[in-house]
Amino acid sequence: MSSLLEQLIEAFRVLPGVGQKTAQRMAYHVLERERDGGKRLAETLAASIERIGHCKRCRDFTETEICATCASASRDAHQLCAVESPADRLAIEQATGYRGLYFILQGRLSPLDGIGPRELGLDQLTARMAEGEVQELIIATNPTVEGEATAHYLAQLARQHGVRPSRLAHGVPLGGELEYVDRGTLSHAFGSRSEMPQ
Amino acid sequence: MSSLLEQLIEAFRVLPGVGQKTAQRMAYHVLERERDGGKRLAETLAASIERIGHCKRCRDFTETEICATCASASRDAHQLCAVESPADRLAIEQATGYRGLYFILQGRLSPLDGIGPRELGLDQLTARMAEGEVQELIIATNPTVEGEATAHYLAQLARQHGVRPSRLAHGVPLGGELEYVDRGTLSHAFGSRSEMPQ
Repeated sequence: MSSLLEQLIEAFRVLPGVGQKTAQRMAYHVLERERDGGKRLAETLAASIERIGHCKRCRDFTETEICATCASASRDAHQLCAVESPADRLAIEQATGYRGLYFILQGRLSPLDGIGPRELGLDQLTARMAEGEVQELIIATNPTVEGEATAHYLAQLARQHGVRPSRLAHGVPLGGELEYVDRGTLSHAFGSRSEMPQ
Repeated sequence: MSSLLEQLIEAFRVLPGVGQKTAQRMAYHVLERERDGGKRLAETLAASIERIGHCKRCRDFTETEICATCASASRDAHQLCAVESPADRLAIEQATGYRGLYFILQGRLSPLDGIGPRELGLDQLTARMAEGEVQELIIATNPTVEGEATAHYLAQLARQHGVRPSRLAHGVPLGGELEYVDRGTLSHAFGSRSEMPQ
């Protein structure tokens, strides 16, 4: 086995969820059948790492100083939605008709991992709310222990600046079967039941 | 979302088993947490595609004209082991004490997919056997329908050149439980039973 091939297999292991066997399969696959695609991947990856940075306003990934969403005149600057990751932002953008702006935390509060307010860019978020334009902070962190802690922290921060904090509704997923919904969710959904409209 | 980021996500999809969601996760992961590793991957991938070719003797991947195994003086040139892929070659090399040489078919006979003797480099294999040095052709294609067909074809080819063809033993895997062994394997193992040594 050539040493460059070994290096390639090792290099593939930086990808999430890729162990030795998968990395080997990827290397062989690219060399056997996808040389053009592999070349394009190498070039795009190098260009992306060099050119994609964070938006100065919302911390999302962007090639420009301010991302297209933040720069858009058609978005409602009164609403700001805080999410943990660009993937969450994308999910909300694709699923909902939300027309406000975003703030990407790039993580959640996790003191044990050394992730505090500074790492999440909360100075920036505070400054943004102090500007006075934002009226509602929609907190869309994940419903995990750390996500909830982050949500509470953000809610406090919002109230200090006269911004109304809101949180995504929890409950039974559409199309799910009650039998398979976890107990915490079911208990929450039961407690938060609402009267049916006539 | 920046267009370079979309291109990166699309580019990751050339990897085997990677769909839209996984590609997205890979792109975000690399940009968020593995910029150095991603850069190394881009460089190694580009270098590999440019420099890794096939060995002139065995068709394995190599950076040089003849791979290290074929060039080695300590390997036994009387034995030649034919495998479908470099991954199979590696598995045999790691699991057994085999000291002969290899021939990598880079596929198996599959007329419907347009893979015939030419695509598997059988001219080369024939020329190799005609040289007269090879005494045994160990056929280690996979025990699938196409792998078996390829094995029969190779065995005929070997006999035509006075080379003894052999095939890996089939049977119950070590450590397996009879109850869970598939019927074909069990039936074969039963039929091929051998007398126990005293």
